[in-house]
Amino acid sequence: MLNSSFSDLAAKADRFRALHAGPQLLVLTNVWDAISARLVEEAGFPAIATSSASVAQALGYADGQFVPRQEMLAAVARVARAVRIPVSADLEGGYGVGPENAARLAGELISAGAIGLNLEDGLDEASAKFKDLSQQVEEIHAIHEVGAGSGIPIVINARTDTFWQGKGESGERFAEAVRRCQAYRHAGADCLFVPGLTDAETISAFVREIGAPLNVLAGAGVPNRGELTRLGVRRLSFGSSLGRATYGHFRGLLRRVASDEPTETILAGAIPYAELNALFLPRSAQKAQRKS
Amino acid sequence: MLNSSFSDLAAKADRFRALHAGPQLLVLTNVWDAISARLVEEAGFPAIATSSASVAQALGYADGQFVPRQEMLAAVARVARAVRIPVSADLEGGYGVGPENAARLAGELISAGAIGLNLEDGLDEASAKFKDLSQQVEEIHAIHEVGAGSGIPIVINARTDTFWQGKGESGERFAEAVRRCQAYRHAGADCLFVPGLTDAETISAFVREIGAPLNVLAGAGVPNRGELTRLGVRRLSFGSSLGRATYGHFRGLLRRVASDEPTETILAGAIPYAELNALFLPRSAQKAQRKS
Repeated sequence: MLNSSFSDLAAKADRFRALHAGPQLLVLTNVWDAISARLVEEAGFPAIATSSASVAQALGYADGQFVPRQEMLAAVARVARAVRIPVSADLEGGYGVGPENAARLAGELISAGAIGLNLEDGLDEASAKFKDLSQQVEEIHAIHEVGAGSGIPIVINARTDTFWQGKGESGERFAEAVRRCQAYRHAGADCLFVPGLTDAETISAFVREIGAPLNVLAGAGVPNRGELTRLGVRRLSFGSSLGRATYGHFRGLLRRVASDEPTETILAGAIPYAELNALFLPRSAQKAQRKS
Repeated sequence: MLNSSFSDLAAKADRFRALHAGPQLLVLTNVWDAISARLVEEAGFPAIATSSASVAQALGYADGQFVPRQEMLAAVARVARAVRIPVSADLEGGYGVGPENAARLAGELISAGAIGLNLEDGLDEASAKFKDLSQQVEEIHAIHEVGAGSGIPIVINARTDTFWQGKGESGERFAEAVRRCQAYRHAGADCLFVPGLTDAETISAFVREIGAPLNVLAGAGVPNRGELTRLGVRRLSFGSSLGRATYGHFRGLLRRVASDEPTETILAGAIPYAELNALFLPRSAQKAQRKS
């Protein structure tokens, strides 16, 4: 990390944390590469979050910690280099075990130019296994300490997979997820992410029980933004869904090419070459180009 | 490069070269990452070609040799790892000058798992400057020699920018482009790529003059596939246009998120999570998953 960017990163961390304070809902349209990140910035969103699934797939790996740690961090660095707004990285389960690994990861996150992260406790979707609560608490605490010690107060979004992937009745899963959220919060998490929340009543109960910013995953059945705000939700993220919709469109374009549809209609929605390219020219060159 | 993949790469080079022999037009829907490459493979296209502009932008760079050579080659390697069909890489002007650089680049291309490349003679779009013909001929020859010497006969798509970016009357630009195509062909190019061709008469004249496979860039005003085939064109590629259409769709999704459209309709075209992820699971795991 360059020293010159230190104060810039610290300010970004503060700014990103403040976006969780309400009253407005923080909406994060998760990205996977520099183009998607620049388009989110240009669209006026206040911050960037990556989707680990989309990043992994763009690099050629299945989701679920198949992507090597250094490749994921390199992808995060490319996203962070491309934009000026704060970047939060989805770092899955942390690519390792224990507080020393977590502390090292926090340092690598900052070196990559990001100031926030997602850390999840789910180990294996198929078997519904989770990290020990004590392990996850130690890891979150270690990351929090790196943030406090470095002067770049990393924003920790602690995700529990116990609600949507746990065994047992909804009530048991709710109780376990709340217990974990409270422990993660106590360890230093700034926001709690509980995928699988859809109905207003359960969302409202979570907000009440955890007493800290709650992150809901966008998707079918989830209340609209006004209602989420009214329920006290502070962060809404899209996970891999916008990436899957984007590549779904590409797949449709391929089918249209295969069926010999005229190129003009296939490419009707394309961003003009100069316009897309200008997003990546040095800012001074951009200015010059706009003048000409 | 692993020795075990040597015969595989040689076979891919042969197969890719044969796709230029007609009578069918080779259609290349240019990609920029592992997801786009896997979707092209799944759609049944016989080969993959990268777009240097799309790859550069996905990595955070403007088009036009701003992306560092090693980052471009790493992106090509990710694409090649993701698919089983032949991969041709757009390597812009070759990231350096002279036959030694070109030979080294050819070796790096093979190490990345690709068996074909685009090499262009345009130096600077704004000033319409081109590499010296003798320099480009030397570089193409050097790449051809690496292909012959290594036993992996690299398929060289030599692009001239003199037709669409040259100065002077259409007739002068045509003459210069033909002169270059003939020289590039003589130096070992397998296919000649002349961006800017649209009308049937000029295309037909090029086919006649160069006596070798011609690559036309898809776009507005270009004849349809049947007509291109009839005119003797052997290769049609999309450049950065499908990438620009794909990210144009993402930009539209962001606008819909910003306007608070219901998530269900925004995500209507998304590839389901398990379906997209399955494209990147090891092939054995994919089989098991299909059974379950």
